[in-house]
Amino acid sequence: MKQDKILIIGAGAIGSFYGALLSKAGCEVSVSCRSDFKIITQQGYNIKSNSLGSWIFKPAHVIESASHYKADADYIILCTKITPDSDRVKLIEAAVTKNTCIVFIQNGVEIEQELIDAFPNNEIISGLAFICCNRLEPNITHHLAYGKLTLGSLNKPLSNNAQHLADLISSTGIETLVTENIIAARWLKCLWNAAFNPLSVLSDGLSTEKILVTQEALVRSIMQEVMNIARACGYSLATSSINTNIQNTYAMPPYKTSMLLDYKNHRPMETEAILGNAIQAAKREHIACPTLDTLYALMKLKELSN
Amino acid sequence: MKQDKILIIGAGAIGSFYGALLSKAGCEVSVSCRSDFKIITQQGYNIKSNSLGSWIFKPAHVIESASHYKADADYIILCTKITPDSDRVKLIEAAVTKNTCIVFIQNGVEIEQELIDAFPNNEIISGLAFICCNRLEPNITHHLAYGKLTLGSLNKPLSNNAQHLADLISSTGIETLVTENIIAARWLKCLWNAAFNPLSVLSDGLSTEKILVTQEALVRSIMQEVMNIARACGYSLATSSINTNIQNTYAMPPYKTSMLLDYKNHRPMETEAILGNAIQAAKREHIACPTLDTLYALMKLKELSN
Repeated sequence: MKQDKILIIGAGAIGSFYGALLSKAGCEVSVSCRSDFKIITQQGYNIKSNSLGSWIFKPAHVIESASHYKADADYIILCTKITPDSDRVKLIEAAVTKNTCIVFIQNGVEIEQELIDAFPNNEIISGLAFICCNRLEPNITHHLAYGKLTLGSLNKPLSNNAQHLADLISSTGIETLVTENIIAARWLKCLWNAAFNPLSVLSDGLSTEKILVTQEALVRSIMQEVMNIARACGYSLATSSINTNIQNTYAMPPYKTSMLLDYKNHRPMETEAILGNAIQAAKREHIACPTLDTLYALMKLKELSN
Repeated sequence: MKQDKILIIGAGAIGSFYGALLSKAGCEVSVSCRSDFKIITQQGYNIKSNSLGSWIFKPAHVIESASHYKADADYIILCTKITPDSDRVKLIEAAVTKNTCIVFIQNGVEIEQELIDAFPNNEIISGLAFICCNRLEPNITHHLAYGKLTLGSLNKPLSNNAQHLADLISSTGIETLVTENIIAARWLKCLWNAAFNPLSVLSDGLSTEKILVTQEALVRSIMQEVMNIARACGYSLATSSINTNIQNTYAMPPYKTSMLLDYKNHRPMETEAILGNAIQAAKREHIACPTLDTLYALMKLKELSN
């Protein structure tokens, strides 16, 4: 059986974890990582998973940018943060061939079109990771809990590339599903992200549990507004989604959100992809979202003072 | 002419400044201050005013609590912060006689009834200070700009005690007015306070100017919601109030709000008096205020992590 060639772009917590799983599954996994190139080349990634144990993931090739990739990638998996100064097309285009299936495992809503437009002949797969995973040192990835990945092909729904990737990852013990409603799933995930990512930053680092215990009504308002926007965009989420999200969050281990870690490390945050894009959609669909508007404005002030 | 006996309770920035003015105007001004009793007894207050110059204000008597006041006060002027753990009635009652006129120069809305109920036979005067004034050291009060005081009798509108106090302060060069609409004036002041006090804290210390330049729309939303609540409570503010407030704020010198100073010094903040009471009024009058709700919830989270 042919060995799949996979290139991970942006091998932070998420990228290194799923890359490590695909390597375990027998794929030839290379990673592109600019800032940590040296240490990853020398040592690989130290994956510490609470559910799967610890192991070293040594990528087949470590490169500094997509232009250094010499093979013909079956899958390019883009796992960078989406920030205003990142150009997702530029990050991958040098390594994309006509056979490459482009996967993005990234946060945010309405982030599809840019890639569909730039690579009209390639299959584009949207991926959502439900995972508690942090990278506390450049080559140490800590997988605290969960890990479920949901994939959906955006433009080639009849191909089986998404299913093949899902099978590979599932074989390592991390559930991976394929859905025909990946955009709705993305809005569903935005319920959680739009609430807990900004609130963890604006509260100066309170845990998801502390936020919920003291301000559950605010969390519900945020989630309701995201649901309203999603519905206006044509994606009606189950009315139970908010309760489910809240129950699941109570059951989560103490967790520092990715946005909080970015904030504390003075790195750009995904404010635009998560809040900004949702608010843009609301304006386009003439939906009021005063709570999101307030959070967004406060995040902008917070960025300014950080 | 009889010398007015005045007792200032809570001689922070505001209390020490107006106390110093009344002393200048010839009154016998005593101050009650718990935490800074020693240094004030020894050195008095060093008043540094950008418009009036610098001088030392030596109170007639410095006491630790109202119960130590031996004279018959013509005016007790309460200038403490209003926080959930402060008992305004208890702070003053030991020094209140049947002749005492009770003045409060404090932030917040709907803070009148507690004092009216506790002292039904005394005149109660509500005071609003429009002033940039900070106390950066226990006995150094820095008056940066403005200073206008507005006074209004709550239960004895035909007495001239408010006017007499206003005349005394005005004689020192700080404009002091008497109004029959002090509650409306309080709501008007809340427009500014509800916006800039929380935003200065939630932005981790941005100046009023930076907040305005980048998030004027948020400031306007907050002010509009406060106006809506005030109107529902029977106090219709001029529609130009928001524009005037914003223009005046652009013209202000760089200023750290009192709430920001409290936050940075890990002291209780006036979240309840300013935001909480406005939101309570909104709920009572069935007025939506989603922006205030969000700010309030975020302030609660911020208090929790501070």
